[in-house]
This record gives sequence, structure tokens and C-alpha cells, in this order.
Amino acid sequence: MQKFRNIAAFSTIPSYFTLDPNQISARNPHKAQNFLRGKWIDSHKYQTIIDPLNGEPFITVPDVQDKQELQKFIDSAKECPISGLHNPLKNPQRYQLYGEVCHKIAAELKKKEVHDFLVRLIQRVVPKHFAQASGEVVVTERFFQNFSGDQPRFLTRSFNVAGDRPGQQSSGYRWPFGSCAVVAPFNFPLEIPSLQIFGALITGNKVFFKGDSRVNVVMEQMLRLALHCGLPATDVDMLFGNGEATEFILKQGNFRNTQFTGSSKVAEHLTKVLNGKIRIEDAGFDWKILGPDVPDVDTQNYVAWQSDQDAYGSTGQKCSAQSILFVHENWVKAGFLDKIKQLASTRKLQDLSNGPIITWNNTQIKQHIDNILKIPQSKVLFGGQELKNHTIPSIYGAFEPTALYVPLDQIQKNKAVTTELFGPFQIVTTYSSDQINQVLDVINNLENHLTAGIVSNDVNFLRHVQSNTTNGVTYSGIRARTNWCSPKSLVWTMWRSKRSRYRHS
Amino acid sequence: MQKFRNIAAFSTIPSYFTLDPNQISARNPHKAQNFLRGKWIDSHKYQTIIDPLNGEPFITVPDVQDKQELQKFIDSAKECPISGLHNPLKNPQRYQLYGEVCHKIAAELKKKEVHDFLVRLIQRVVPKHFAQASGEVVVTERFFQNFSGDQPRFLTRSFNVAGDRPGQQSSGYRWPFGSCAVVAPFNFPLEIPSLQIFGALITGNKVFFKGDSRVNVVMEQMLRLALHCGLPATDVDMLFGNGEATEFILKQGNFRNTQFTGSSKVAEHLTKVLNGKIRIEDAGFDWKILGPDVPDVDTQNYVAWQSDQDAYGSTGQKCSAQSILFVHENWVKAGFLDKIKQLASTRKLQDLSNGPIITWNNTQIKQHIDNILKIPQSKVLFGGQELKNHTIPSIYGAFEPTALYVPLDQIQKNKAVTTELFGPFQIVTTYSSDQINQVLDVINNLENHLTAGIVSNDVNFLRHVQSNTTNGVTYSGIRARTNWCSPKSLVWTMWRSKRSRYRHS
Amino acid sequence: MQKFRNIAAFSTIPSYFTLDPNQISARNPHKAQNFLRGKWIDSHKYQTIIDPLNGEPFITVPDVQDKQELQKFIDSAKECPISGLHNPLKNPQRYQLYGEVCHKIAAELKKKEVHDFLVRLIQRVVPKHFAQASGEVVVTERFFQNFSGDQPRFLTRSFNVAGDRPGQQSSGYRWPFGSCAVVAPFNFPLEIPSLQIFGALITGNKVFFKGDSRVNVVMEQMLRLALHCGLPATDVDMLFGNGEATEFILKQGNFRNTQFTGSSKVAEHLTKVLNGKIRIEDAGFDWKILGPDVPDVDTQNYVAWQSDQDAYGSTGQKCSAQSILFVHENWVKAGFLDKIKQLASTRKLQDLSNGPIITWNNTQIKQHIDNILKIPQSKVLFGGQELKNHTIPSIYGAFEPTALYVPLDQIQKNKAVTTELFGPFQIVTTYSSDQINQVLDVINNLENHLTAGIVSNDVNFLRHVQSNTTNGVTYSGIRARTNWCSPKSLVWTMWRSKRSRYRHS
Amino acid sequence: MQKFRNIAAFSTIPSYFTLDPNQISARNPHKAQNFLRGKWIDSHKYQTIIDPLNGEPFITVPDVQDKQELQKFIDSAKECPISGLHNPLKNPQRYQLYGEVCHKIAAELKKKEVHDFLVRLIQRVVPKHFAQASGEVVVTERFFQNFSGDQPRFLTRSFNVAGDRPGQQSSGYRWPFGSCAVVAPFNFPLEIPSLQIFGALITGNKVFFKGDSRVNVVMEQMLRLALHCGLPATDVDMLFGNGEATEFILKQGNFRNTQFTGSSKVAEHLTKVLNGKIRIEDAGFDWKILGPDVPDVDTQNYVAWQSDQDAYGSTGQKCSAQSILFVHENWVKAGFLDKIKQLASTRKLQDLSNGPIITWNNTQIKQHIDNILKIPQSKVLFGGQELKNHTIPSIYGAFEPTALYVPLDQIQKNKAVTTELFGPFQIVTTYSSDQINQVLDVINNLENHLTAGIVSNDVNFLRHVQSNTTNGVTYSGIRARTNWCSPKSLVWTMWRSKRSRYRHS
Repeated sequence: MQKFRNIAAFSTIPSYFTLDPNQISARNPHKAQNFLRGKWIDSHKYQTIIDPLNGEPFITVPDVQDKQELQKFIDSAKECPISGLHNPLKNPQRYQLYGEVCHKIAAELKKKEVHDFLVRLIQRVVPKHFAQASGEVVVTERFFQNFSGDQPRFLTRSFNVAGDRPGQQSSGYRWPFGSCAVVAPFNFPLEIPSLQIFGALITGNKVFFKGDSRVNVVMEQMLRLALHCGLPATDVDMLFGNGEATEFILKQGNFRNTQFTGSSKVAEHLTKVLNGKIRIEDAGFDWKILGPDVPDVDTQNYVAWQSDQDAYGSTGQKCSAQSILFVHENWVKAGFLDKIKQLASTRKLQDLSNGPIITWNNTQIKQHIDNILKIPQSKVLFGGQELKNHTIPSIYGAFEPTALYVPLDQIQKNKAVTTELFGPFQIVTTYSSDQINQVLDVINNLENHLTAGIVSNDVNFLRHVQSNTTNGVTYSGIRARTNWCSPKSLVWTMWRSKRSRYRHS
Repeated sequence: MQKFRNIAAFSTIPSYFTLDPNQISARNPHKAQNFLRGKWIDSHKYQTIIDPLNGEPFITVPDVQDKQELQKFIDSAKECPISGLHNPLKNPQRYQLYGEVCHKIAAELKKKEVHDFLVRLIQRVVPKHFAQASGEVVVTERFFQNFSGDQPRFLTRSFNVAGDRPGQQSSGYRWPFGSCAVVAPFNFPLEIPSLQIFGALITGNKVFFKGDSRVNVVMEQMLRLALHCGLPATDVDMLFGNGEATEFILKQGNFRNTQFTGSSKVAEHLTKVLNGKIRIEDAGFDWKILGPDVPDVDTQNYVAWQSDQDAYGSTGQKCSAQSILFVHENWVKAGFLDKIKQLASTRKLQDLSNGPIITWNNTQIKQHIDNILKIPQSKVLFGGQELKNHTIPSIYGAFEPTALYVPLDQIQKNKAVTTELFGPFQIVTTYSSDQINQVLDVINNLENHLTAGIVSNDVNFLRHVQSNTTNGVTYSGIRARTNWCSPKSLVWTMWRSKRSRYRHS
Repeated sequence: MQKFRNIAAFSTIPSYFTLDPNQISARNPHKAQNFLRGKWIDSHKYQTIIDPLNGEPFITVPDVQDKQELQKFIDSAKECPISGLHNPLKNPQRYQLYGEVCHKIAAELKKKEVHDFLVRLIQRVVPKHFAQASGEVVVTERFFQNFSGDQPRFLTRSFNVAGDRPGQQSSGYRWPFGSCAVVAPFNFPLEIPSLQIFGALITGNKVFFKGDSRVNVVMEQMLRLALHCGLPATDVDMLFGNGEATEFILKQGNFRNTQFTGSSKVAEHLTKVLNGKIRIEDAGFDWKILGPDVPDVDTQNYVAWQSDQDAYGSTGQKCSAQSILFVHENWVKAGFLDKIKQLASTRKLQDLSNGPIITWNNTQIKQHIDNILKIPQSKVLFGGQELKNHTIPSIYGAFEPTALYVPLDQIQKNKAVTTELFGPFQIVTTYSSDQINQVLDVINNLENHLTAGIVSNDVNFLRHVQSNTTNGVTYSGIRARTNWCSPKSLVWTMWRSKRSRYRHS
Repeated sequence: MQKFRNIAAFSTIPSYFTLDPNQISARNPHKAQNFLRGKWIDSHKYQTIIDPLNGEPFITVPDVQDKQELQKFIDSAKECPISGLHNPLKNPQRYQLYGEVCHKIAAELKKKEVHDFLVRLIQRVVPKHFAQASGEVVVTERFFQNFSGDQPRFLTRSFNVAGDRPGQQSSGYRWPFGSCAVVAPFNFPLEIPSLQIFGALITGNKVFFKGDSRVNVVMEQMLRLALHCGLPATDVDMLFGNGEATEFILKQGNFRNTQFTGSSKVAEHLTKVLNGKIRIEDAGFDWKILGPDVPDVDTQNYVAWQSDQDAYGSTGQKCSAQSILFVHENWVKAGFLDKIKQLASTRKLQDLSNGPIITWNNTQIKQHIDNILKIPQSKVLFGGQELKNHTIPSIYGAFEPTALYVPLDQIQKNKAVTTELFGPFQIVTTYSSDQINQVLDVINNLENHLTAGIVSNDVNFLRHVQSNTTNGVTYSGIRARTNWCSPKSLVWTMWRSKRSRYRHS
């Protein structure tokens, strides 16, 4: 298989894994299972997952729809007390147990055969470049290093403040929610669920987990690894099912918190359904500004390379993907637009530097592009065409890395320009120094404010843009990128404050 | 006026106040104003507020319903940039300005004439005992002391973590939301709005504030005090209006956060309307347990006194009011039930140790009591009758401090028992040592988990109950009370995390 | 009195003060007292302090040398238990008491008549410009705002970490030392002692305080103010005495910590005498670098003004005074040296922009200058002469603001160049971009590393210098100054970590 | 070898180790080396170490005394810049490198063959029970887990506070000292040096390490393990040498901080020599109080077992060893003294539950006992005799676990009673409830306040003792022990605060 050339055929696969990522195919499909009350269990109904690169069926996963089958997950969730499986005053030894489990998982993920297995498995279900898939494994491994040893209990350290009179003291604890749900998306099938599930477990919650069925075989295998490393088997339940089944469980399960990562539309719906007991990671229309100060040619090339990565890496299917680029005219003069065009032209299916688009098909993409090109003075900078000679099934998109130019003042007038297309697609515009506040106006009228980049080393320019915008992560400096990594949203959401006061005398 | 005998007629009233709390009456009503864009403004429509002790009109407040009038508040809110009026990188001098303003407000509130004015004004609109009203002023004053000087900028201190390579660094900032709304309830007309509004202002937000029209004259006067102490006049807008008008503004105003304190029902509705962009302080069915260890008689008397305060102070209209009391049989034997009955019998309208019930009228209260008394073995311990010989208007409740006994196993079977009655009312039950887990079962099946008290000095008993329950504030120890003071929920909600990364080389 | 023209004669002096700063003179001297066990007491022996501007006696202070008299201070110190006057578990109500006292002191210091009194009194004993003396009062006032209300107990908040098994928990407390000593210098007679004494008191220590007798009348008056605001009278003892007497008390008093601010030589001696139970604020040979990027003329003028302030403000008698200035040749070309020469020439005794030098006399200063001028290529840039037509007594120095140029390579060879002269004196040198590491070499070979300034907005230049140097405070940016304000060293030194572990079951 | 029966002969020894702990003997001695500038080097002079169990030579270690040889270590130390090998702004990638190294070391220490090797090696040089030696390895392993991944850079996270005006900000960094020294004692040959050396390395320091030559073969082997796991070879130098040689290096090396663990006498001397640039872990005369509340028999037995462990575990040679025990008369009545006597009688050389005493020989021990027995009413409770039939060389002590009774009022009068004997020895006294303040008086007059235990579950008793004493670690609760583990003193000492301010505009 040419396109995965970075990893040779596996000489060894650890015995806790139950498939070979190179071998699953229509003739040799993998059959996944649900996990409930510490046991791998079969379902009454299954669904077939097709290979996103050639449309052939290669995985079979449960598709639970039966209410009685779903009820078992609800019952399991409800058994967890609202004070959690552990908290600073209950079963504190479990903090240490999790510290040991995390250390062992990290040590396991460091092994070449484990790393390669997971990289290849990710690539089979979300075809992306080796560097991107490997990065996902490495970030996950680093997370487990971070919560080794005593770190789980340090994470939940509490505080005391002296009281008003002798014998009185006020304490603040970090308490679990009890039973929690994690609902995760397709694009990072290992990293997002691993961090969210273990963030919740470490702090004493029981977790119900539902991933995207198309990719969730990755977490099915990861869970086997975690159990091998000592994860208490009844702390997590995992379901393969559709949105309707999930919503049924979320509503009935009375979870005290749900961590949802996915589209803004679903997030908004679930917020209402769950009365706000939800924490959300949703979309971003992420911007980058190239400032007035153009550096030396080497650094220019780096900035162009980073821009290509930010827009088109993982086929643009990262919540941190660069969606709009504001290029100062000094950079235009220095030939920046030619550089990114040239870099985009080298992306190809063969090495997965470009790949299938999971949530937008070609018809939708073409429609979006056509709408934008109706705007006066807008034009295609590069790309804009469907891929040819490929076997990607038509339910998925297959498109060239694309950049459309729209003038700044037209962006202000047309909301459609700033709608996110979750694929290898970006808007590019230019501005002059006296237009910077117009740029800020566009930025501050976006719906979401996830991540952003300000490419400049001019301290006053940086401060002007930073202090007048509001993104979750803003990356600044001459080598800035668009980037998302919020330990808080990914990990630390799963506790609540609990205050204790004492008055002993 | 006999009942306010604790404060003599005012010799001096600071000139920034615009009324005399002793003098407002049907013949001399106070007319309140809205505050918008730094100016006190009149409305097209007004509403009359009646004296809760005698039903006579004594205050006139705006009752804005006109869409154009409301639109002006929306326009003002939208003018605030999403990066706030200040943030750690923008206008940092405003942190110091707020430090000075807070210091000056605290110094002002410390003056006897200011303290007494506010106590009396609170008593006129929410009749409560001098000690309770004074406590509200003192807590507010303390808050302003706490945010004096450099404390606003210390509150928003940010952090840096070293990056992956030279020139790289990651920073976490505490950023304002921009434009925020505060919607406050009737029961603490000074404390709750003051802490929430200034918590939001200090961190860089612009605030739209809506209080309960029946009591909001208190914040109208407090705002005048704050302006006198240097509050920037255009940082806060304040509206007198009904729920419909408020919802119109909240929906159209596009606030990035709303702090709501009030009923669970409204909270749930607003959560849906505002897509979860809301932080909520709602109801509590607060419990207290008297443990197996009965102390010396003096301490027993203290515990009885505290229990009476927790259940009936402020006529039971505190979110922290004791709603259910679990009495260990050892305490029953020691005569505890007689003690609280005796204490309740001394409460009276004359000194406002009992007063009008704002949100439940007598018909509703009687209905609730009758429902509970249908439960087998339940009975009235004391109270249970309407007040006599009073002038409280019939839209408000007027009732004796009441305790109903319901057996533990019946509470488990009847959800109605654990419905909150926001007035001078509590459920009392008894248990033996081998029933403690039954008690925990009742507690953990309550809807809300606001505050709780565990009266014991037995470390193992305390730990058993603490570690198996989950309340916002749990008060433990032989002199424990039910108590609510969450600086986080009242004050520190109004920022969001913002991460910056730098890569300069 | 021409030179204090900024403050008119006092119309009002608060009654807790016991002198009029304008009136003390040879004919009307002030007689100061010691403070012990809550009482102002006389001594057996007194000393006369002369007016630093004209040599006339104007204050009489105790000069305790008698062992029996000293023993009383030792006895008082020893009475404080090693667990302090309060700690998080003992007398916690005292945290609140101190919060109230701090608030009241701040409110008092905000009053114009109090501010002006202290400014004038500081100017009488340490003649410095109004702006400098006023700054000292304002910083002190701000400190007390910062520790108002609940801040003392927030400052000493403790933490808990979950234990290894049920019933176990580990807590970290901030505990007082018990009895502490504060020994303060002459140059900031209000700010340094106030912050250090109250930093120690807030955290539960009892304080023995000894200031510089020449200036300590300022703290004598400040202590009266603090007592007026509710300071518990027996928490502080204050002695007027010489170094020998102080050392006797420090040795015998068995203080568990001593905060010493003063010369490196005395600090080193006390470290040995007190077996290391000491925290030290000593000298600094503070540097500033003007980087390669020269800004617009307005900013250049600001940088020159700031440089003049840093070198010669308070007659150079600040531990943060600029001792050596590295000027990039680009700044030389822009005329920077002429600018600072011109600014220095406007300093004069009349407005105290120049004044008496307390610890170096003219003979010592001339000797130091002569030694440096022997170095090849070194020269006087400006100043270098004694003042004329003045009445400063000869035990003090009286000298023009002076700058000597020494070539960079000569500084590397001559240690004498980098000896601190505590007066209006600086070394100036120049460098080119390829000499920056030579500059760093000079800097890193200095004995002390107190404060520093890097005047540049070039992010890479800033990072290179910052990351390769190590000062207590480094000020960076185009408007950087030399500056010292370490809340930690001034305030937060007076606690120790105490860890508690619990295992209840 | 009977006495190490817990570990069988090694089947595998990792190749980075250079000896077999079972095999070293007079016929097969191990020859250790110094480590300098990344290389293992020989010395001109060597010293023979004898087996503490039989007096036979079994290890040869360098005994560097030559000034030129020592100078090489000084030169190496001086090469480290004062801004360290890395800091938050310099080489930040090294934080991650150390995170990886720590993870790998932890994973290595988890391997049975590595754990067993180190346990046996520790037992050869400091004969102690398997449980004690294993505990040392496990604590060390846990430390390395704690600093895995991103934890080194989280440890040094810095903060920012908003400035006074736009463009201004204040930052606090955790900066290395540069070149540091670690001097470690004999009793924990693996744990103390490992934690102190790596605590210093992680934060960017270069380390000069000197252990006790008698035991330092343990760190010689540990260093080989660390190098195998990726420790940068030139970050640590390690010397075998005597006190004189060490002092020479410490004085000349100009270390900016020295971490010293050892006797109070040497600590005091070094404080003077190094002008206070030292952090000290020294002796403790550790106390335990059994409170008035006697629990059930099982718990009594646990308390007796713990008391025996605290006094005699590791042959009493832990800084946390229980030196004095205050037994409430209620415990005496319950037969506590018989229980600890019985437990002590089971300790024996065969399983190293008793062993050689490294710093006190039998003559010194007998002298100390005789002195105490001269005190009226004092007596031997148990022990008090030399061991018989053993081969421990006479330079070391060999003594029975011993307890002497001294009446409470005699302890107050005789300072000698509270002198630490670093061996299996304790003072036992009794008290009644009305004597508790006399107990506190004894405690508060001790020289050192390291660790303490309060065995009680009575909250008021606990608070009374806790709030009136001041120890580094106080262990409270019915299962309390004497215990020392201060992450701060062992690990986090090796940084200094550095404040940066910025003013960019």
C-alpha cells in the first residue's frame, strides 16, 4: 500500500490489540464491540464502515438502536454516586492508581510498535499524513506522562482559608461530577477522546463514551491498551451508536456533565436538551494576519510553509485550520502569494498530504465556492477543482487545496465568506497599514473565536491586535501558526468546586 | 415606626442619595430612574411599588416596555468591544482605577450614616431583622475592601509556560467577556447585585443590570454612591422592567455572558433562550444533619439557636435557608426539638424577626402544608398557622415559623416533601445511627445541592457524610450552619480563559 | 522655606501626630521615644540628629546602650510563642482585624493633610524632591489597600492534597516565624519599614523594629497613625539605637527570622552572627542597556528623561539607582549623551532635585572619581565637582550629578569601576552591535544582580539579553527604567511552610 | 547471605550497571570513579570502604585531595552561566528533554531487576530492612514519574500582572541559580541525592554533587542509569572526597546555591563559610504525642506498631525518627508501654530490622544513656545493652532498640534529654490531661522543629496542639506517624524569583 509507505508491515503487534491495521479490508473486516460494565459485548445490530480511500467495506461496528440495549448503558451510568468514584475525601488511593496507569500507558505508547500501530490505524479511518497521525499519538502520550505519579492528586489539590473565629476554617475542593458523558468527533480519533475520558476519570468521574462510529475503532483498540495498563474496567462504558441513540442516553442518563466536541449546530441543540449541563468544543473560523514587518527570505519561506500547513494539513479538517488569511501588502510585494500557491500544488493523495473530506462532499464544496465567486472582485487564487483519478467514495469530498481571494471591504459585507468549510479551503485577502482596524472589524464580527495567528515581531502591532481581539488561543510572533491546544477545555473540565467550612469549636 | 427601632431618625444623609428611607410613603413616594450611557433617564411608563408591610404605594419605578426605549439599552450593550473595556493588554490603568473606586466605596460604606441608610432602605423593601440587613451591608463593604488597590490586577494575573523551542512561550490570560448582563433577585437587594456587577466590571466587562423592580431602589441608590466614588459612568446601564422586557434585551443584546440569580424554572428557560451563555445561581433544598455526638448543654443551645436562624432568619428567604433537618435520636433525647420550638415562638413582626413572604402567598403555603400532612405519620411540630393582626398585603405570605415532621422512610417515597417553600418553613425528621445511609440516600436524590450542614465533631462521621455527598458549600463541625458564600459564583464568573502563544524566532 | 515650596504651611495636623514637620528646628527640636509592650517610653540616653540641609540639631532620639534597657526588648520578643500571635489554626480572627487596620490606614494615608505631613517629614530627614517623597507615601498607601479586608487570610491560604488511603490528607500551611526583627535603612524611611513590619504582622509575627536613627522619626509618627487605626499595641516594639545595641538584641533575642535591608557588608556580618536566619535586601550595581533600535525623537527624549531620573533621582540614593549605562553607538549618533548632560545640569538643591549624600562624604567621592579617571581613555562626561554655596554639613556629601565615561574593555579589566557609589553618580560606556556579548560579560561578572533595564523594542535583542542575565527585576521595552519593587522580598518573607498530614482512620 | 534473603541472586543486571551487589567483597571489591565534564575519571588517590556488617573492605572510592584535581571541578562549575543552562527564555526545549528523561528513569526503576539491584546495593552500604530500602527506591521512582512530560516546564511556570499604563506588564519568572552544589548524607543514599540533583537540573542548574563516600556507590550506579536514560552528560559533576576537599570546592566554586543535608553543626559552619548561600536540611528531635482518646484494640496495636517503626525503623537513622514520645496516662493504663517493648524485642540483625549505627559508636551511646539515667526517677524501659555475637566493626555502633523513661518535669529541667542520638533510641514520658501545656512547653523549647505526630481523633485536642506548635511536618490523627517529606526542601529549592517588567509603549 503505497500511500502508507512510512510504516513498514508490522513485525509485532502487542497481544492486547485485536486487529492488524494493514490487513483490514473487505475480505478481512474487523468487527468492533461495545464495552459495558467492564466487559466487551456484542450488539443486536451492526453497521458497515467503508474505507474512505476506496469505498470498500472494511470494519463492522455495533449500531445500537434498541431501547433495552441502550437502557443498560443508562443503568450503568446511574449507578455512579454523585460524589464520584473517588474524591479528595473518598478512596484517595485511586488518585495514585490513576497516576500509575497513566505512567504505564505513556510507557506503552512510547514503544515503536504501539506508536506505529496507532498511527496506521488512524490513517486507515481518517486518512492523513504520517506527520499528522504521528503527532496525534505523541500528544496523547505526552498527556499520560503529564498525569503520572502524584499528578492526579496534585491536580485536585484543595485549599483552606482561615475562618472568622477559633475552630473555623473554609476549604475549597475539586470534586467530581459523578457520572459524565464524552461525545467526540471524527477528526482526532485518538487524542480528543483519550484526553477527555482520562481527564474525567482522573478526577473521580465515571465516563460514558460515544465516538464517531466511522473512526471509533481507534478508541476501541486504545481502550484495550488502557485496560492492559491497569485501568479499572468498570470506570468507562463505550458505545457505538448514532446520534439518536446517543441523545436518548444523554437525556435519560442524568449525566451531571457532558463534554461535547463537534459542530456548533449539534452543540446548540444539546445545550437546550441538557439544560446547559454541557461543555462544548465547537467550530472555529480561524484567522491569521501577516503584519507589516516582512522578515528575511528564510523566515518568509518558513511563514509560507506554516501557512500551507495551517490551511491544508490534515486536509483542512482541524478545528484550528486557517480559514482566512489577511496578508499585508508588504508581504504581497515580497511574493508571498506565489509561495503558498507553489506549496499547495505539491499536495497529493499518495502521501495523504491531501485526502478525503469527511463532512462536505464535492457538490457542497462547489456550491460554496460558486457563491463566493459571485462577490465582486473575488477570484480563485489556486485550486478550486475536484480531484481526478481517485477512488474516494462520493459521499466524501475530494478536492484540491483551494484559496479564494475576496477584497477586505467585500468580506465585511458578505457573511457567507466567513462560513467555515471543513476541508482544504481558505479565504485570502490583503490589506494596507491604514486598514488594520477594518481587519479587526471583520475578525470581531465572526461567530466563533477559537484560534488565531499574528505573524509579526513588531511589539506595538502585536499588542494592538492582541488587545483588541478575543480568541481561545492567539499565536503571535514571526513564526506564529494557528493552533489549538487548551488543556482546560480538553482535560480539566470534569470537576466542580465544592466548598467546605468547618467550625469545630 | 416601631419596628425599625434599631435606627434612629437620620441626622445626616449623604448628598448623593436622593431619598430618606424613613420618609417614603404614599404621600411622599420616591420616583426611581433608569441609568443609561452615564445618565439618569426617565421612562415613558411607570409602575407603583407597595410597602410590603402595609400595602400602601411608596415607590414609583420605570416599567419599560416600549421596544424603542429597550433598544437603547441594546445599542449601548453592543458598543462594548468583545475584548472588553479593558483587559491585561488594553487600558491596564483601569485595573488600578477600579482598585481605587473599590477602596473608596468600602470607606464610604464604613461610615455609620451610609451603613444605616442602606440598612433601613433594605428593610423598607425586604423587611428583615436589623442583624440580617446590617450583615448584607457589611458583606458588601468587605467585598469592596477585598478588591482595593492592586487586587483587581492581581485577580486577573496571567501565566506563562516555556515553549518547545527558543523564542516560544505560552501564556494564559483572564479576559473579559465584553458585554455582560446581570439579573438579580429580590432577597439580597444590595449584596448580590453589588458583588456581581463589580465582579464583572473589575475584570473589564460592561454591565447591563436588571434587578427586581420591587426592591431595586436599593441598587439605584447604591449606584449613586458608586458614581460618587469614581465609577466610570458609562460602564453600567441599569433598567427597571419586567421579565418580558428583560428577555427581549437579553436575546437581542448578544451578551457574551449573563449572570442570573433566581428560580430554577426561569434559569432553565434562559439557558435555552441564551444557548447556554449563562451562569446560574438558583434554588437549594438545603439540609442539615445533627450527628450522633451530642455536646455540652451550652453548645446544644448554640446549635438550637443556629438552627432557628438557619431555618427562619430573613423569614426563610435565603437560598441557604435550612429546608430539612435530620436529627439523630441522641439529640431528640436531649430535648432538641423543644428548644427549636421555643426559639421559633419568639419570632415576631415587630422586630422583623418574622416578615412578609414575597414569592409565596398564604393559600400556596397552606396547600403545601396540607399535602405533606397527608403523608402517614407526618405532623406539625410547631407553627402551621397564618399570622394574625397584621397589615401585610395578601399578595404576600404572612405565616408563622413552621416545622413539619415526616418519617425518614416516607421522605424517600414522597418527592413533594423535598420541594422548596421559599419562606419560614422546614421539614424535620429523625434517624438512628444505623440509618445514616438512608439519610444519605435522601440527600443524594435531591434536585439541587447548594449548601448543607453537618453538626458533629466526630471525624469519622464527618468524613463519611462529606465524602459521600456533593454540595456547593458543606459546613461541618459542632457549630456548623447552612451557609452560602461562593466568591466564585458571585464574583469571579465574569472572565474567560484566553491563551496566547508566542514564537518570536 | 523655599525648598519645600510644594507644600504650604499645614492648616491641619491630625492629633495623633506629635510634631509639625515645618517647625522642628534647633530652637524647637522634636524628642522621639521608644515603643515597648504597647507604651511609648523614654530612654536613659539620647542622641541629637542634625538637619541634613544646614547641620543644625533639630531632633533628639533615644540612643539606648544600657544592657538592662535593651534586655527589656529581648524579654518582650521572647514572650511571643514560636507558633506566632496567630496562624491559620490559632486566633484566625486576627487576620480580619489586620484587614480592617490596613483598610483604615490606607484611608487615612489618602487624606491630603496626612499625605502632606508625611511627605514633608520625609523631606526634612532625607531631603528629596516632592515627587519622590510623595511617591513613597503613595506606594505605602497602596500596600495597605492591597491587604484590606480578607486579603490577610487569603495571603496565608493553605492547601490540601489527597492522601494514600481513606482518612489521610496532606496540608500545607503558611505559618509565622513567631518573633521577628526588622532592621531598615535611611533612604526610604516610611515605605521600607511599613511594608516589612506589616508584612510580618499580617502573617502572625511579633516584630522588633530598628530603623536608622537619623530618619526614624518618620516611623515613630507612622506608628502613632497605625495605633490610631487599631494596630494591637503590643504586636510591635520599636527601638532607637546604634548598630552595637541592635546586634546585641538580635543575638540574644533568638528571633526566628530577621529582615535586614542595608549594605552588603553588614548583611554578610549578620548572616554569620545569626547563623543564616536572615533575609537580606542589599546593594545593587544596576545597569541599563540602550539597544540598537533608536525610536522617534519624542521617545528618545523620554528615554533621556528616564535615564536622568534613574541615575540622579533621590540624589542617586535608591538601591535601584542606575549605576552603569551601556549606550549603543546608534544612540550616541542620535545625540543621547548631550541630552542627559543637559538634564543633569538643571538639578539643584532648591527643589531637592539634588541633595545631601548620606553615606559618602565629598572626600570619599572625589577619591573614587580620581581612581576611575586613572583608567586609560576614561573621562568626565559631566559633573564631577562638589556643590558650592550650600549649608550641607561636611559629614554628608554635596556633589554635582556626575557621569564618567570608561571604555567597555577597560571596565572588563578594572573591578573598581563597578563598585557602587551610593550617590548621584554613574558610569557611561558605549558599544556596537558586535560587542553585545562583551556587555553581557561585564554584567554577569558584577557582584550583585538587583535591577536592570533594557531599552529596546526589538524582541530578539530583548530575549538575548533577558535570557542571558539574572536580575531580581529586569525592566524591558523602549521606555524601560531601573526599578525595584519586589513584593516578595519586601512583604512576603515572613512566613514559613508548615506541612500537616492527617490520618484519621 | 542469610540477611538479604528477600532478594534472590540476580538473574539479570542491566548492562549500564558496573557491579553485582551480591558479589562485592574483600576478594572482589568494586572500584568507583568520579564523574567530570561528562566522563568517568580516575583519581590520584583512593580510599577503602569497609562492609558495615563485617568490617571487611569491599569498595574502593576516590579520595581526591590534590588541589589541581579539585580545581578541575571548580573550573567546570564556573563555566555554567549565571542564567543557567536553561531558563524560561533560554533553551526551553531542555524542559521537555528533562520531562522525557524523568519518564524514562521512572520506567526503568519500575523494572524488577533494577529495583532489586538498587535495594540490595543500598542494603550493602546502609544495612536496613528490605521494606525500608525498597521504600527508598519506590519514592525515588515516584519522583521521576511526577516530573515526566511537561511537568518540568509547568513547575517553572511564570506569571504576569497588568501594568500601570498601556504597553506595560510585570512578569515573575522562576530562574535557575546557575551553578549549584548538592552535599548529601549517608542515610538515604539513593533518594536524597536523586531528588535534590534532579530538582536542581530540571530548573536549569548545573550540579556539583558530593555524597558520603561510604555509601556513594549507590549514586555512582544511579548516575549510570540516568545517563542511559538520556541525562545530558555534562550537566552533573560528581566527586568522591572528604569534607575538607568539599569545603575547598564550595568556597572556590562560587556556587550561587548549595543544598546541604546533614548535621546541624556542619550546616552552621557552612552557613558562615558560604555567606548564607545555602539551604539546609538538618537534624530533628522529633516528638509524638498520644492524646487522651484511646481507640479500639486493633487501632491501639497499629499505633504501637507505628511507634516501633518510627523509633527503630532503619535503626533509628532517619531525620524523621521518633526521638521522644509523650504517652497520655490513658494509654499507659491500656498497656501501651508493654506493647512497644514487645515489638522492640523482635528486632534483629538477621533481617536488618536492626543494624549498624553509622555516626555513633557504642562508647558514645553508653555515655549518653548513663548521663540520662543520672536524672531522678529516670529508668530504662527496655533495651540499653550492646548487641552481642555480631561482626559489626567497632567504629560503628551496635545496640539494642532502647527506650528510657524520664519524668516530664525532669525533661523541662535537663536539656541533655533532648539531644538527638542518631540511632535506635528514644525518650518516653507520660502525662495527664492537665499537663498538656507542660508538654507543649517542652516541645516549643526544642532546638529543631522538623517533624511530629499527634495521635488522636479529638478535633479540639488536635487543634490545640497543632496551633501551638511549629514543625515542618506535623502528622495528626489516630494513625499518625512521624514522617518527613517536604517536596519543597528536597526538590524545589533550586530556583530564584526573577521579575521582569515591560514597557513597550
